Amino acid sequence: LTQQLRSLETQARILAAAADCFTHTGYDATGVAEICARAGVSKGAFYHHFASKQAVFLALFNAWIADLEAVMQSVRTTDKPAPEQLLALAGMVQQVLDAATGQLPIFVEFWRQATKEPDVWQVTIEPYRRFRTAFASLVSEGVAEGSLRPVNPELAAHVLVSLGVGLALQGVLDPDGAEWRGAADQAIQLLLTGLGAEKAYEP
Amino acid sequence: LTQQLRSLETQARILAAAADCFTHTGYDATGVAEICARAGVSKGAFYHHFASKQAVFLALFNAWIADLEAVMQSVRTTDKPAPEQLLALAGMVQQVLDAATGQLPIFVEFWRQATKEPDVWQVTIEPYRRFRTAFASLVSEGVAEGSLRPVNPELAAHVLVSLGVGLALQGVLDPDGAEWRGAADQAIQLLLTGLGAEKAYEP
Repeated sequence: LTQQLRSLETQARILAAAADCFTHTGYDATGVAEICARAGVSKGAFYHHFASKQAVFLALFNAWIADLEAVMQSVRTTDKPAPEQLLALAGMVQQVLDAATGQLPIFVEFWRQATKEPDVWQVTIEPYRRFRTAFASLVSEGVAEGSLRPVNPELAAHVLVSLGVGLALQGVLDPDGAEWRGAADQAIQLLLTGLGAEKAYEP
Repeated sequence: LTQQLRSLETQARILAAAADCFTHTGYDATGVAEICARAGVSKGAFYHHFASKQAVFLALFNAWIADLEAVMQSVRTTDKPAPEQLLALAGMVQQVLDAATGQLPIFVEFWRQATKEPDVWQVTIEPYRRFRTAFASLVSEGVAEGSLRPVNPELAAHVLVSLGVGLALQGVLDPDGAEWRGAADQAIQLLLTGLGAEKAYEP
């Protein structure tokens, strides 16, 4: 057990050191040697835990996605009506903004490598599919309980995930371009009520 | 006049050659020499028209945005009610998907350089702001004519642009992950009607 704990601790130290290096030096300019030096581990220990710098980045990325999925999970188990769950999930956009603002260059450097390797790319797009599935299930429940209109759950999930992705992307690209804090919450409110006039418009 | 025409023609030939080179070789691996060779122009002629490879990419990017803005402009001048204009503008997402699918590696390579140069970055984020302004004006008109509910136009514009950006980004990242064709149109329909049940839900 002690050895397992030590192994986990080493892994965590490598991840934290890599995150620091990526933030300060960028993804491209960071080498495995720098990560090892900052973590205080040997290259042997590094390669025991991770196949490459890319594998470390993916582990950090997956940990970040897992945090978002934990939020989703905790909201989904509340038994609140679907509209309230959707409003609670708006906080995920803020969570992405808080974590990713200023980190865009690192993601872009990583993506540049990922676009050349289909396996790695696959891992980076998988979360979108999982979030669409999770939102479709939430919308289905809402339709079944009568808190949402009888919409197509897959379409609604597309709209919800696209809205979140679009808000987060613009917020990260252009933090000063608009008031992003609270935007997701208001956007969900607007989506629930709808944009169209209640009566058909007669020009 | 003839000389001006010849100059415009050279510029167009450089842009077309650069687009070909970027698509076939990637942004990073393309040099000004390759662009000149493919365009059949001298380096002198190239630098007469463009300061750098980056300037050529930005010119291509701006031409692409101008195409989208032309669609916006032509829809905005139809005098149709706002909901119909919004549905007509859903086609812009498909236009982005058609143009950008398969080109992602080039954009990512370019962005990697752009994140290091604030001036260039500014040019690449400016269109988001312009589209938000244009959509806010469309929503204002819709509210004034009574075809849209009295929503906050800036918020609605946020939602509309985010929806479009999110759909386009997911569609480009993951073309086979879902049925993207027609998704924007259906998304606008859903946004007009709203997701929430008409009567308040009583658990």
